[in-house]
Amino acid sequence: MRIAVDVMGGDHGSRAIIHGAARAAQEYPELVLELYGPRRHVLAELSRLPQPLAAATSRLIPCDAADGVPAEATAAWALRHGRTTSMACMLEALGDSRRRLDAAVSAGNTAAMVAFSRRALGMLPGIKRPAISTAIPARRQRQCYLLDLGANVDSPAQRLVDFAVLGAAMAQSVDGVRMPRVALLNVGAEATKGSSRVRQADAVLRGHGAAGVFDYRGYAEGGDLYSGALDVMVCDGFVGNAVLKSSEGLAGMLVERVQNAFESRLSGRLASLLARPVLRRLKQELDPVRYNGASLLGLSRIVVKSHGGAHAEGFYYAIRRAMQEVEHDLPGRLAQRWQAMP
Amino acid sequence: MRIAVDVMGGDHGSRAIIHGAARAAQEYPELVLELYGPRRHVLAELSRLPQPLAAATSRLIPCDAADGVPAEATAAWALRHGRTTSMACMLEALGDSRRRLDAAVSAGNTAAMVAFSRRALGMLPGIKRPAISTAIPARRQRQCYLLDLGANVDSPAQRLVDFAVLGAAMAQSVDGVRMPRVALLNVGAEATKGSSRVRQADAVLRGHGAAGVFDYRGYAEGGDLYSGALDVMVCDGFVGNAVLKSSEGLAGMLVERVQNAFESRLSGRLASLLARPVLRRLKQELDPVRYNGASLLGLSRIVVKSHGGAHAEGFYYAIRRAMQEVEHDLPGRLAQRWQAMP
Repeated sequence: MRIAVDVMGGDHGSRAIIHGAARAAQEYPELVLELYGPRRHVLAELSRLPQPLAAATSRLIPCDAADGVPAEATAAWALRHGRTTSMACMLEALGDSRRRLDAAVSAGNTAAMVAFSRRALGMLPGIKRPAISTAIPARRQRQCYLLDLGANVDSPAQRLVDFAVLGAAMAQSVDGVRMPRVALLNVGAEATKGSSRVRQADAVLRGHGAAGVFDYRGYAEGGDLYSGALDVMVCDGFVGNAVLKSSEGLAGMLVERVQNAFESRLSGRLASLLARPVLRRLKQELDPVRYNGASLLGLSRIVVKSHGGAHAEGFYYAIRRAMQEVEHDLPGRLAQRWQAMP
Repeated sequence: MRIAVDVMGGDHGSRAIIHGAARAAQEYPELVLELYGPRRHVLAELSRLPQPLAAATSRLIPCDAADGVPAEATAAWALRHGRTTSMACMLEALGDSRRRLDAAVSAGNTAAMVAFSRRALGMLPGIKRPAISTAIPARRQRQCYLLDLGANVDSPAQRLVDFAVLGAAMAQSVDGVRMPRVALLNVGAEATKGSSRVRQADAVLRGHGAAGVFDYRGYAEGGDLYSGALDVMVCDGFVGNAVLKSSEGLAGMLVERVQNAFESRLSGRLASLLARPVLRRLKQELDPVRYNGASLLGLSRIVVKSHGGAHAEGFYYAIRRAMQEVEHDLPGRLAQRWQAMP
């Protein structure tokens, strides 16, 4: 398996990304990673890798690219001026069948990533724009895919329907959910509520659901995301982005409060024995994008976005996500699903 | 002070509401509460109040009303068929100056509450529709008002601007924040991002901010709600509702996980000594609406919505919220602010 990695995105610099990549390469001996970024810089970081990560260096291939996409760049700027960036080079390479790449992973600018991906890879037949999705941890050891997370704002009804089909296909292909339970996010469960776009999408989805493609459950509210009773929750990208980022913020604050509350009651030694390991695990579980990576769905190839704030470990998980999608041939399965739709 | 209470809303029945009301009356000897609902039913619940709550019975006045608003009722249904409901009677009474009521509190159907309030009380001059807002607990012992929470979906730019002014005025009047820091929820902090409505509202707010009415901070992302760096966050009601309900769902799941994690590591006795009190407090802090109540802003009078899932304690806090708003003459202060706007 051969995956392209953009070393220039993310808040923690290319060292964290290269460490994450090295960990994946070390753990999976069949994995080759192409590292896109200024070659001298990449080589310098590779030379500093500690053991045992350094052992994987032979499968970490530097691929020269001049610069990174600025965090504040727009899609339009990226398309016009970003040809030489590591992200654009990586996605062009993924789109070139002679390069035999299976997937690409970046922690960089999302808008640029969506724009480059559409241009370099193209969409699956019948899908207009990519959607971004990640698995949110839920009760009863379950998870729920939330989409869109910000690739689309002001989504018309038909795009919400597309998200439902994409999300359901992902739950089916990657996680083996036979009949994914899909709901449409709304302000209430009653049929009379919500915006006209959401109500229109609901009408179309009731038809699909009946066709047995997935189990459409109608409207759900924000809290149902965590109930464990749904596999996919669909909403406009503005809403999904707000829900995801506020959840991240809340989880961070909560973990901090639990920590403070326990540390003020327990002695330092007891706290470190009892509370800290539990809290560390909680933090990981509750920081979905930072640890899971988010998938760009609807493209002809596999592209995973790692959280901009991810450290090496988060980037490692984003690569693992990409590997899973490669193993299950996600774009192929999505295309099949799409053709099977009534 | 005289506050009207709708005993017919909420998931836990009128007993929880009457208990919450009795607790408020017992604690505040100057408080008189009018209890709207079927008189025999209210009297029966009052007769069953345990001591010391029963001592406040003389200031809990039953006001007969035939029935409640069904949970699934629409605003249109309520306006057409809901005249005899406890909620409508309570809000008509609040609108009647001879009744000398200061505020009204209900845990019932939000859509009906907004519709009845508009009809019975009217809006402040210049404001078209009520917004719903609650204080979200944030880092550094702060809070941030989030609005709208679902009274308006598909809000045009001007309504987002109204929300900013209302939220800032509330932080100023009720909490004494001299120059509230207000932000507009968006998918990113960059000026080029977001829907056209949000960008239009931003352009107008940059003008207001310069006028020194409040400190407009531009765009913020979902996570900034919990940062403690903002006093007011503004968004469309669809988005606010999704953010609030997903936060409630996440907080519930998290508290459960922390509890399980500690209980599996600590003996039962240690767990109950150390973990449970901390968790109980956390639950309260993190369930904003259930404990704070949500305010309907922009009406000529004070109306507070208690969470439908609130128990007696949550309803008690909603009454306290209404009392605070009465003490600070919130509608009068809002009207002043509105006139002072450029």
